[in-house]
Amino acid sequence: MTNDPYLIISADTHAGLPTEQYRPYLDPAQHEAFDAFLAQQTAIADARKQLGLQNEEFAGAWFEEHEEELRAGWDAAKRDGELDKDGVVGEVIFPDADAVAGSTAAPFGAGLGMVGAEYEPELALAGARAHNRWLAGLCQDSPARRRGVIVAPIVGNVPGAVTEIRRAHADGLRGGVMIPSMWGEGEKPYHDQAYDPVWAVCEELGLPAHTHVGAAPRQELGTHLGLYVTEVVWWSARPLWFLIWTGVFERFPGLRFGVTEAGAWWAGSLLWQMDVAYDREHGTQKLASFGEHMKRRPSEYFDAHCFIGMSTPKRRELSQRYEIGVGNLLWGNDFPHPEGTWPHTRDWLAHAFADIPVDEARAMLGLTAAQTYGFDTAGLRPLADRIGPTPQDLGQDKADTSIWNAARETGRHWLTGPDVPAVVGAARRAR
Amino acid sequence: MTNDPYLIISADTHAGLPTEQYRPYLDPAQHEAFDAFLAQQTAIADARKQLGLQNEEFAGAWFEEHEEELRAGWDAAKRDGELDKDGVVGEVIFPDADAVAGSTAAPFGAGLGMVGAEYEPELALAGARAHNRWLAGLCQDSPARRRGVIVAPIVGNVPGAVTEIRRAHADGLRGGVMIPSMWGEGEKPYHDQAYDPVWAVCEELGLPAHTHVGAAPRQELGTHLGLYVTEVVWWSARPLWFLIWTGVFERFPGLRFGVTEAGAWWAGSLLWQMDVAYDREHGTQKLASFGEHMKRRPSEYFDAHCFIGMSTPKRRELSQRYEIGVGNLLWGNDFPHPEGTWPHTRDWLAHAFADIPVDEARAMLGLTAAQTYGFDTAGLRPLADRIGPTPQDLGQDKADTSIWNAARETGRHWLTGPDVPAVVGAARRAR
Repeated sequence: MTNDPYLIISADTHAGLPTEQYRPYLDPAQHEAFDAFLAQQTAIADARKQLGLQNEEFAGAWFEEHEEELRAGWDAAKRDGELDKDGVVGEVIFPDADAVAGSTAAPFGAGLGMVGAEYEPELALAGARAHNRWLAGLCQDSPARRRGVIVAPIVGNVPGAVTEIRRAHADGLRGGVMIPSMWGEGEKPYHDQAYDPVWAVCEELGLPAHTHVGAAPRQELGTHLGLYVTEVVWWSARPLWFLIWTGVFERFPGLRFGVTEAGAWWAGSLLWQMDVAYDREHGTQKLASFGEHMKRRPSEYFDAHCFIGMSTPKRRELSQRYEIGVGNLLWGNDFPHPEGTWPHTRDWLAHAFADIPVDEARAMLGLTAAQTYGFDTAGLRPLADRIGPTPQDLGQDKADTSIWNAARETGRHWLTGPDVPAVVGAARRAR
Repeated sequence: MTNDPYLIISADTHAGLPTEQYRPYLDPAQHEAFDAFLAQQTAIADARKQLGLQNEEFAGAWFEEHEEELRAGWDAAKRDGELDKDGVVGEVIFPDADAVAGSTAAPFGAGLGMVGAEYEPELALAGARAHNRWLAGLCQDSPARRRGVIVAPIVGNVPGAVTEIRRAHADGLRGGVMIPSMWGEGEKPYHDQAYDPVWAVCEELGLPAHTHVGAAPRQELGTHLGLYVTEVVWWSARPLWFLIWTGVFERFPGLRFGVTEAGAWWAGSLLWQMDVAYDREHGTQKLASFGEHMKRRPSEYFDAHCFIGMSTPKRRELSQRYEIGVGNLLWGNDFPHPEGTWPHTRDWLAHAFADIPVDEARAMLGLTAAQTYGFDTAGLRPLADRIGPTPQDLGQDKADTSIWNAARETGRHWLTGPDVPAVVGAARRAR
């Protein structure tokens, strides 16, 4: 085990201007609509509170304690300093810096909560363009460390979204593309080939497409916070199996797709469920074909094209990494959101990764993200050497990593043959 | 370990008449509408085929090989004989005997695939009444062994459904109530108190409410079989968390709710996810209250009120039984569906349960179902002694059940404190 400091990249951070400051980034033609949008902000904030998305007491303490650092959510000059505290050398930047009060929402709802059927396509695109323009500037301030994600409301206006993706890419954004996780009632689902121009431009420009957690069918869930918390992950991940099952990765072999901040705990079971169905196990023998276009197992498309921005993984999720694929999991600190690990990332890493093999930790904490988003690891190495925690800092020098042997050797038990890891591991104990 | 034969109850079987034979069970007022419905059957069958729900080759072989036994799907005289072959002494009977060609659909779509928004409430209720009437007769033919599930299209006509539940219960049906798993676009979700009369009558009459796998948003999924197979479980299980999070079990403390034939592989992660959110772990501290009505952890409501008719469990699912709760899992052979284990249940049980502790197997294979649906175990014991497999028949006398110790002692790791079972078990190995 080498004790070199980790080169840590957060595959999930957030940046956004206080909403009213987006005005100069909007085309003058939208200023009037923007005034109307600003006038609704109180109502939108009230809806958030009604659903229970805002705990007043927590919000008060949070903003009081972090008032200054939180400006790093939009202040280019402060941003790297906050990441340095966390030992993070690079970041992939999604919208909505303020996930507590929603005060940094991009114009016209262009952000994490986008639902295709619920926005006016032209306005959403204008709002996304404003955010993308601003974000390009933020990234140019520290180009080696920042990858900005292009916000692209593709539902309702594919050509316009494709044009904006090209424009934003030309403007320097290299963090990939974020599409709405929900198309919404009555809109074309992502299996529709009407979206092919989106997949095509992402493939052509080498931009991974993403969904990011946030949207859910609010009307249907009412004000029941528990329903929102339970379902939001599913609605965010849903496009993943739409792309896998409907031939998108066959038509666009260079396309990559990631699901960010929706956890990873569901992915192992999803791959198991899709693979055993595809392999015509007993329960699916009665069914017909999954389609000419399905030339490989779902998990093979997943390995070749998909990744999970798991952000701040829990032990339960890390324990499933051999089923999901260690190389398919990207860590993130969710800066500057309170549900993330900033500004205590070093402690969190020591807790979650202490007994994880170092080579696996290096991949999940940064190296896979570097490949996915094109960070220059050689260029970032000196900074990593200065601010990155070492395996020893995470307690990994004292760890017995053999506890993972059964799970690692079994991998995807439905493909490797042996029984579930619990039993395989126990059998080895017995030997 | 006593070697007494197992008392096996299938918590998931199916019965239904060839559709046209439901005519005498319909009120004459619906005969004209029924003729129109019959005329659409070819179109409905074509839609099934287009989605890929029917593999012609498989269907041909299936019907040829089992032509005679499949009549037990509606022929009362043949039914017990088929269950005897499987070693099954009792059954909980859902609709739709033919899951291959759909030839036994109850009138007006009253069956497994019901989606509230897609049926005409009065007709769906009439179809359900016809099926329930016929099913009562089937159950009266062998009352000790049969529990018929009341089909109740509650979406769109709560009072009518409540009346039908009372009528069918008075008519002798004791297998609980099956509601549509999907209310559908624009209809009231199950958190709406408009459904309280349904929960009230189920509580009053001691009838567990169920969803059964089958429905999915077909329009949205198009003809992509993979999407249907991947999502149908989620849509079937969805009402479970709607009831848990929105206070239904607080308002109706005697209500029981089950999810049948939707697998069990998702339940452990669901409970983990809901509990950690409820316990305000780091990621949910920023959120407000889950509601005055949430007096207990989601998993406590689950243990007290819910169960999973897991039907034919895979090893992966059985390995998660200590998180889900051994006492919350009911086995079923899905007779006479080809994705079930009939007519080879004895072999299947030997494969899946060989290393499961006998007392746990007895609970999952019959005793929990006996309690849930009020079977007379003493009365069924002589039959069980005659046809039931013994633990020895399943190879359990040779099994080392200690392989499960770590998982059993850990239970729900998020409540019991220790780390995930993989690590806990390994740590014990190291000691």
